[in-house]
Order: sequence, then C-alpha cells, then structure tokens
Amino acid sequence: VTGAGGFVGRPAADCLRALGFDVHGVSRRRGPLVADLLNPADVERIVATVRPTHLLHLAWYTDYEHFWRSPENLRWLEASLHLVRAFAANGGRRLVMVGSCAEYASDGGVCVENQTPLAPATLYGASKHALHVAVSAFARTAGLSLAWARLFNLFGPAEQPARLVPMVIRRLSQLEPVACSDGLQVRDYLPVEDAARALALIVGGEIDGAVNVGSGTGTSVRDLAERIAALVGSPELLRFGALPRRPGEPDVQVAGIERLTREVRFTPAITLETALAQTISWWLSRAPESDLTSALRR
Amino acid sequence: VTGAGGFVGRPAADCLRALGFDVHGVSRRRGPLVADLLNPADVERIVATVRPTHLLHLAWYTDYEHFWRSPENLRWLEASLHLVRAFAANGGRRLVMVGSCAEYASDGGVCVENQTPLAPATLYGASKHALHVAVSAFARTAGLSLAWARLFNLFGPAEQPARLVPMVIRRLSQLEPVACSDGLQVRDYLPVEDAARALALIVGGEIDGAVNVGSGTGTSVRDLAERIAALVGSPELLRFGALPRRPGEPDVQVAGIERLTREVRFTPAITLETALAQTISWWLSRAPESDLTSALRR
Repeated sequence: VTGAGGFVGRPAADCLRALGFDVHGVSRRRGPLVADLLNPADVERIVATVRPTHLLHLAWYTDYEHFWRSPENLRWLEASLHLVRAFAANGGRRLVMVGSCAEYASDGGVCVENQTPLAPATLYGASKHALHVAVSAFARTAGLSLAWARLFNLFGPAEQPARLVPMVIRRLSQLEPVACSDGLQVRDYLPVEDAARALALIVGGEIDGAVNVGSGTGTSVRDLAERIAALVGSPELLRFGALPRRPGEPDVQVAGIERLTREVRFTPAITLETALAQTISWWLSRAPESDLTSALRR
Repeated sequence: VTGAGGFVGRPAADCLRALGFDVHGVSRRRGPLVADLLNPADVERIVATVRPTHLLHLAWYTDYEHFWRSPENLRWLEASLHLVRAFAANGGRRLVMVGSCAEYASDGGVCVENQTPLAPATLYGASKHALHVAVSAFARTAGLSLAWARLFNLFGPAEQPARLVPMVIRRLSQLEPVACSDGLQVRDYLPVEDAARALALIVGGEIDGAVNVGSGTGTSVRDLAERIAALVGSPELLRFGALPRRPGEPDVQVAGIERLTREVRFTPAITLETALAQTISWWLSRAPESDLTSALRR
C-alpha cells in the first residue's frame, strides 16, 4: 500500500489486514517502509525488497486546492508509471490503482464506468486519466490483473483540514462564519472508512478495469453543510454564495455504483448522518490548533 | 529536436534550419548534443544548457514490431513527461509532440482530429495517447503553446530496414520472395520528406492541439507493394496472404487532413510514385548488407 500513512491509506491498510493480507505500507514520513516515490531509486528499492503480489497505489500529490493544477501531477504520473513497471518486473500480479471522479466529463451527472465520457477539466483529472490509459494497456501486455478505482468525494477523520467537511466543522465549532459557494453542486459523499473497505475488497477480488467507489447518492454541498450545522450548531454562520465556484466544476457528479455493488459486492455500511457525527467527534476531540498541525503532518 | 539522428528527425531538423531556426538536435549516439533521454539527469542537463524556445520531441522507442507491446513505451512516456516539465521550467514556449494514427480507434476509417474516437489497441498507441492527455492539460496550466502531430504511415530513406517499404524493396531487388499479409489494409502513406516539412511548419506556426500528418489518400498495402514491384521488377515474388495480419490491425486508416492543409497550410509536394522511386534509388545505391547495418546503427 502506497500512501499508507494518509487519509485513505491508513484505514485501507487496516481493512486489508482484516482480510488476511500481509500489508507492507509505504509512507514518506514514518513506518517500516519509508520511501519517497518521486525518487526512482526508492521505488526500485522498496519493490525489490517487498516483492509484493498485490499493489494498492494511493500515494499522489494532494495539497488542498493546489492539486488541481500543480505540475506535481506530472511528477506523480511519472512516479506511478515507474512503480507499475517495477511491480511487474518483480513478479507482481494484481494492481489496484486509484483514479478520481475528476476523470469524467464535468457534465457527467451519474457517472457510469465505460459509458460516461472521460474528459477531465483539470490537470489532476487528466494525469489520473493518462495513468489509466497507459497502465491498462501495459497490464494487458504484461499479464497483470488491474482494477482502477475511481474515488468520489470522501470525508472522515484525518482529512486535510482545509477541505470542506473539516473546514465547516472547525469554523462552526469556533463560532466563526463559513464562506461557501452557492452550495447547489450535487456530489457523492462516502465516509472514508467505507471507501477503505471497498478498496480492500477490490484488492482481494478479481474485478477488472474501472470501478467507481462512491455512495451512489447525490447530496448538495448546501445540504451537507446544513447537516453538519445541525449537529455542531450555529447554522446561521453558513454564508452560501460568499465564494465563487471553482471554474469548470461540475453541477452534478454522482457515482453509478452498479459495478461496485454487483461485482465487488460492497454495500455502504455507515449512513451519512452517523459518519458525519463520528467525523465531528473526531475533529472536536482535538484542540483547535493541534488538529490542524497533526493532520498536516501526516 | 529530440531523435534528431532518426528517420524523421534528421529531415525535420533540416527543414527547421531552412525556416531559419537555430536547431539543437539531440541524439543518443552522435552530434553536439548526445543525451540519453531515459536518464533524468541527461534531460535536465540538455534542457538547462540549450534553454530552447521550441521543442520538437520525436524520440521514442521504435524497434520494429517490438514497439507495439514493449514496456519501453512506459519508460518513454515517463521520459517525455520529464522533458516537458524541464522545457517549461527553463522558459520553453512552444511544444510540438509527436503522436500516432495508432491513437485512433481501429475502425476509425478516415480519422478526424477531435472527432474520431481515441481508443488505442496497442501499448504504443495508449502510451502516446496518455502523453497527449497529460501534456495538453499541463500546457494549459503552464501557458505553453502545444501542437500534437499524429503521424500516419511514413516511408523514405533510412527507414528501419525490416519495415514494409524497405523490406519489399530489398527482397525484390535480391530476387527473394516477399511474404505479405493479404494486403487489403488501406493506409495513408506519406514520404518522410513531406512529413518533415509539415512538422517544421507546425513548429514555426501556431496551430493548437491535435493535427494529423498524412497524405489524405488511402492506399492498400497490396497496391503499395505492387507499385514498388513495378519499379524494382519481379512482381511475381509478392506472396499476399502468406502472413496473418497483426491482431487488432485496422482495415482502413487514413488521415483527415483538413487541419493540416487549412491551418498549417501544408500540401504534399511529392507524389507517391516519385517518392517511391527516390526511396528505391536510396536503398539500391547501398550494398545489400551495409544498408542494413548502417540504418540499424542510426
């Protein structure tokens, strides 16, 4: 598991262990396998050391807001291609790579794998899409089994504090106003623990090709923020319309989850309400500043 | 110009000089700028040394037959991404990258940019397509001007000897039988000198995005081989149907050249007949074995 110290990687590694996998988590900062995947020598070293049968590749550049347009996306694309080559050369068999809803055309609505057009509007989405194009052709020639998991909107403990859910929780709990866009965008929110379980089932299963990882349910940003406010208090501090939308942002983007439910046999276990309540507890149990710094250090 | 010692790169560099460019040709083997683009340190060094305003990136893995499926395609994809990043970081302005008709869906027929579906059937085509997806998004965020030239079937002096045109010329001239597929595939054949001139016009112009580089005329493999035989002699040595087609090979693949003629203002200058005669002279002026070895050494 790459990115094993991260927001998705940590719970995904736990779920894989629960399925009986002998998990080797790679992280930039700490743990038994410290490696900088942007350094080709590190990639060669860890793959030759572990000789993994399965690879769940979660690591990528994810700095809030910057990740949409940063040239770091090209570096991670290069590093990911190198990792896949090294994995194949060292006897790897099953590869699970992580894509994004940002690969789909922004007027995609309910996005269905192998049907909704892929037309990424951002460098992030384009880099993920390019990785999918190259790696799926490579997997065919190299005889690797490949699943491409497209993550939709996740939330939960240890998310980047500047992102929507933690930002709303923290501001409201500190009685500060929350500047939002109009909030009418419809998204697919899935608790990170559910996403982690879905990824572990994908790694352990045999599903081939692209598979959406989402709840299958559309929720507007406004509805999400109001649900948080109903639990934290101070709904009057939500200022919808105070910020513009990100250019090219889709109006509606929801995961079609037929492949996920039928072929991966995954069903979301946690309701949005419960997951939001747990996430709020996680954030509120941290001191206002230390939560920020500890999450940033991951 | 990368790949400046190659089949397309050498005449393209000549055409660019004729347009007034101060050309820095990068080659793996000889010349003032020797570099292995698969070595990241070489990429950094040459780009920082030359600080090019324009980049024509032709270098790729092209070993006959192997290039369709070789993992080298992923290495060249990585190297090309790195080259583009280094070009942007060193003040580059206009980027001309080279794609392929192999990016189009194999039932494409007459392929039109931004219209015919892109569905590469090979690792080579997928790697080129992936490069286009990533680099076009990068160019937008980095403010680079980008043209993506899709080459169709080229032939001419110094082509790899095992490829169709040189193989037919050499076999027939040595009075050896020529095993061919059924030869009913329709392709778009353009003399390499014309392709080189088109590329130089693209570099010097402002066309943005994908542009096909082809003749716009379909010719069957059978017709092409018979035209060669009409010039070299011994048409009875052509054995159509002796070989299977390559799996997934398109029936008809011809370049739509409206962008090339209208926006690049390129018109093919050499007829197929003349170009074949010149190519035959070039091959026959070489001793049967030395041509092979000298072309392989390029």
